[in-house]
Amino acid sequence: MNATTNVFAIILAGGSGTRFWPLSRETCPKQMLQIVGEDTLLRQTVKRVQDFIPQKNIWIVTTEDKARDTWFHLDPLGPLAKEIQFVSEPVGRNTAPAIGLAALCLQRLSPESVMIVMPSDHAIPDRERFLSDLKIAIQGAREDYLITFGIKPTRPETGYGYIQVEKPSDSKYSGLLKVERFLEKPDLQTARTFLSEGGYFWNSGIFVWKTSKILAEIEEYLPSLSHSLKKMESFIFPSDKTAFADLKTGGAHRPDKSDQRLALCSARYAELESISIDYGIMERSKDVRMIQSSFQWSDLGSWAALDEILERDRAGNIFRGNTIDVDSQNSIILSEKRLIATIGLKDMVVVDTPDATLITSKDRTQEVRKIVEVLKEKNREEHLIHRTVERPWGSYTVLEKGNGYKIKRISVKPKARLSLQWHRRRSEHWVVVSGVAKVTRENEVYWVHTNESTFIPMNTKHRLENQEDGPLQIIEVQNGDYVEEDDIERFDDEYGRQ
Amino acid sequence: MNATTNVFAIILAGGSGTRFWPLSRETCPKQMLQIVGEDTLLRQTVKRVQDFIPQKNIWIVTTEDKARDTWFHLDPLGPLAKEIQFVSEPVGRNTAPAIGLAALCLQRLSPESVMIVMPSDHAIPDRERFLSDLKIAIQGAREDYLITFGIKPTRPETGYGYIQVEKPSDSKYSGLLKVERFLEKPDLQTARTFLSEGGYFWNSGIFVWKTSKILAEIEEYLPSLSHSLKKMESFIFPSDKTAFADLKTGGAHRPDKSDQRLALCSARYAELESISIDYGIMERSKDVRMIQSSFQWSDLGSWAALDEILERDRAGNIFRGNTIDVDSQNSIILSEKRLIATIGLKDMVVVDTPDATLITSKDRTQEVRKIVEVLKEKNREEHLIHRTVERPWGSYTVLEKGNGYKIKRISVKPKARLSLQWHRRRSEHWVVVSGVAKVTRENEVYWVHTNESTFIPMNTKHRLENQEDGPLQIIEVQNGDYVEEDDIERFDDEYGRQ
Repeated sequence: MNATTNVFAIILAGGSGTRFWPLSRETCPKQMLQIVGEDTLLRQTVKRVQDFIPQKNIWIVTTEDKARDTWFHLDPLGPLAKEIQFVSEPVGRNTAPAIGLAALCLQRLSPESVMIVMPSDHAIPDRERFLSDLKIAIQGAREDYLITFGIKPTRPETGYGYIQVEKPSDSKYSGLLKVERFLEKPDLQTARTFLSEGGYFWNSGIFVWKTSKILAEIEEYLPSLSHSLKKMESFIFPSDKTAFADLKTGGAHRPDKSDQRLALCSARYAELESISIDYGIMERSKDVRMIQSSFQWSDLGSWAALDEILERDRAGNIFRGNTIDVDSQNSIILSEKRLIATIGLKDMVVVDTPDATLITSKDRTQEVRKIVEVLKEKNREEHLIHRTVERPWGSYTVLEKGNGYKIKRISVKPKARLSLQWHRRRSEHWVVVSGVAKVTRENEVYWVHTNESTFIPMNTKHRLENQEDGPLQIIEVQNGDYVEEDDIERFDDEYGRQ
Repeated sequence: MNATTNVFAIILAGGSGTRFWPLSRETCPKQMLQIVGEDTLLRQTVKRVQDFIPQKNIWIVTTEDKARDTWFHLDPLGPLAKEIQFVSEPVGRNTAPAIGLAALCLQRLSPESVMIVMPSDHAIPDRERFLSDLKIAIQGAREDYLITFGIKPTRPETGYGYIQVEKPSDSKYSGLLKVERFLEKPDLQTARTFLSEGGYFWNSGIFVWKTSKILAEIEEYLPSLSHSLKKMESFIFPSDKTAFADLKTGGAHRPDKSDQRLALCSARYAELESISIDYGIMERSKDVRMIQSSFQWSDLGSWAALDEILERDRAGNIFRGNTIDVDSQNSIILSEKRLIATIGLKDMVVVDTPDATLITSKDRTQEVRKIVEVLKEKNREEHLIHRTVERPWGSYTVLEKGNGYKIKRISVKPKARLSLQWHRRRSEHWVVVSGVAKVTRENEVYWVHTNESTFIPMNTKHRLENQEDGPLQIIEVQNGDYVEEDDIERFDDEYGRQ
């Protein structure tokens, strides 16, 4: 048996991440953003443990409403992505219940298993160092310790929790360090003291332990959660332990609302106390040990955190995309397509998206949530959805919405097709601008080539399909008294959508 | 004879105004912007003297390349706009040659005339006070003085030129004041001295004089310009003075490149020394008198100047359009459609347009020209043209340009039509989203209703027309290997375009 056969990565991907608005939206949370590095944070997190543990030992814990999009989001990882397992929380209830639920499922499958618990939205640029530290942590976990990674502070940061460890005799802080206490986010004065005294580390929120150990600790320190989990167990695994395999595994498992057994315990799960694993277990357990990480890390808690992880120019600036600057300093300017021109900014953050631009002083990036709250109150769309929406078959971009019409650019991946569908209140004109569209319209099937167009009347079953090897791109002009996304009835869908 | 029958308003509208980028573009200079007040600066300038002098006494001096767009820009002023006269400079040569050219034309038409010379891009919110001061100025001009308006300084401004006047015995600075000297833009220390000493006024650049007087002063102080103007006169007015009426007047005079007589003196005009009337005449003439203005004024020299003229909230901010703010101070935030969210800005200016956003500290708004220079160097479009382009028949907005295609929303005014045209390298799909389109396609003429579409192949003569009383709106999807505006050949145009 390989040393990692029973090591599982539990990736926590339930967060919504309003702090990265306007790039993050309700339908596109922080973990799905490509903010740093070559891929999205979630996919980077998966890649970090791929090839280190078996693919099927990678579990994503997310909420039921995010599960399907998260599943499709992993597609670019290739065929192996289909082996990744999902545990869907009926609703979000902070990390202790989420980890408890995952441990409950895992315990049945592999009683001797070790869990690596990782947030899905942190930046860790150096995979090799991470894996090297991880091996030490797994060893510690097998000795029945709860292992946490501490990051050596480089500044008096007030945005992180701290871990104080016993000063080792050699003052080297290597190996498994005994934890004195966990500390909440300090004020600036306290953070400065931590930094000068030494022996204080940032709490990374990355944990390693045996499944049996964390369940035992939950039983001891969170007896109410433990009790509830046991009650749920009888719903999730009605007969025997093979039931879990039936529920969770099998080639292309899709998270699905039809998963009745999880739905059965929804109400009970919703009643669980919302509590973090740090507060519920780590601060109380006597068996916690910390490893000082050798890897660079950021929890990307706000836009200002990019300074920790991205390279800055001589004036301390970070520029992305279409920008022109005159004399700015220590600023972060992120554009997509549109031109952002800046003059003489100091300690500012500018983030541009097609429908919203954020401009804030760097020391107030935490207050982005206030903007999101205003948008929610006003029933606006800019916190919910992006102009460009990723779909399993490709993507669409809303180019304009006017009175009685809406214009979209639709891109269909090679060999992909949309559902067979109709709309009750709108007709659609399609102009093909690249590729060849195979169009089904009621009983007709026909091909529309580049620079040709077709018309789909209201109440007409239709389907758009790309049978070519290259991309298909069409411009869709919708006409009708109601042109919203929910005017759709699907009759047949490749991707199991209703 | 009415007292103002021979009073003429000479509105200088040749400026390009890069300092208001990204709202101003080469094809949409500052005077065509609606920055303050209910209309564009140029139309406000026209309205300021409308009903005070005869409509046909309003003359616009602009450059040949801007004349046609400026003419169409006046359309919303109604039928009276057709009586406004145009004097087109072959090229821009600063204010002395422009005023000289206008005076030359005017002298022939009305030897006893009084000229009110006004920039087209200043803000003067109070029309009544302006007219009341103007009457005093006209009286002074009739007494053979060169009258200029001085603005009482309210702060040690370093962006304006100053006029020092002789201290009147009653210290009231009323009536015609004798000018001691004109002063260039001062440094801050000097500006502070001016403010504390009194007797210094901002130079507004608004002048009133007799046409014969300014020509005499040009002859005395700018003999070379005077000489050149006289040479040009023989081209512009070859036979007798009625020739000018033939050239300049007549119902719907359209500025036109076919105006051969002006073209004849192009080369000569281009050779004129580029010199301002302030430097060339006002600083030297012995007959200058200043009137202290009773009206509020701003030359809108930069974005920061909006503070002088627009109302600020309690925190000193100015917000326009779609904005959400948390705790900003003394900032100017102008959005059009897209959301601009700001947190904790101090003394900043943010100006958003569909294809470019400017973010600058308020004390560096003068440096916007540096951004425009970079755009020119890089052959970018963002300083040339807006996404939405006004046309005599309506407007179009580029929604997206992609590889081999371009999408436009086209709005056609009631009873208006585009030219009969064809394109060599693109075809066009038209989807009508509101109204009814009358379409000419080679020999066919047909109607396309809302939610219907039609196709215009390459190399096919076509015309789009709105015969209804309401607006017509279509979405145009262009397909071709080249989808630029210059791929157009016009066969017949309502608006005399080629």
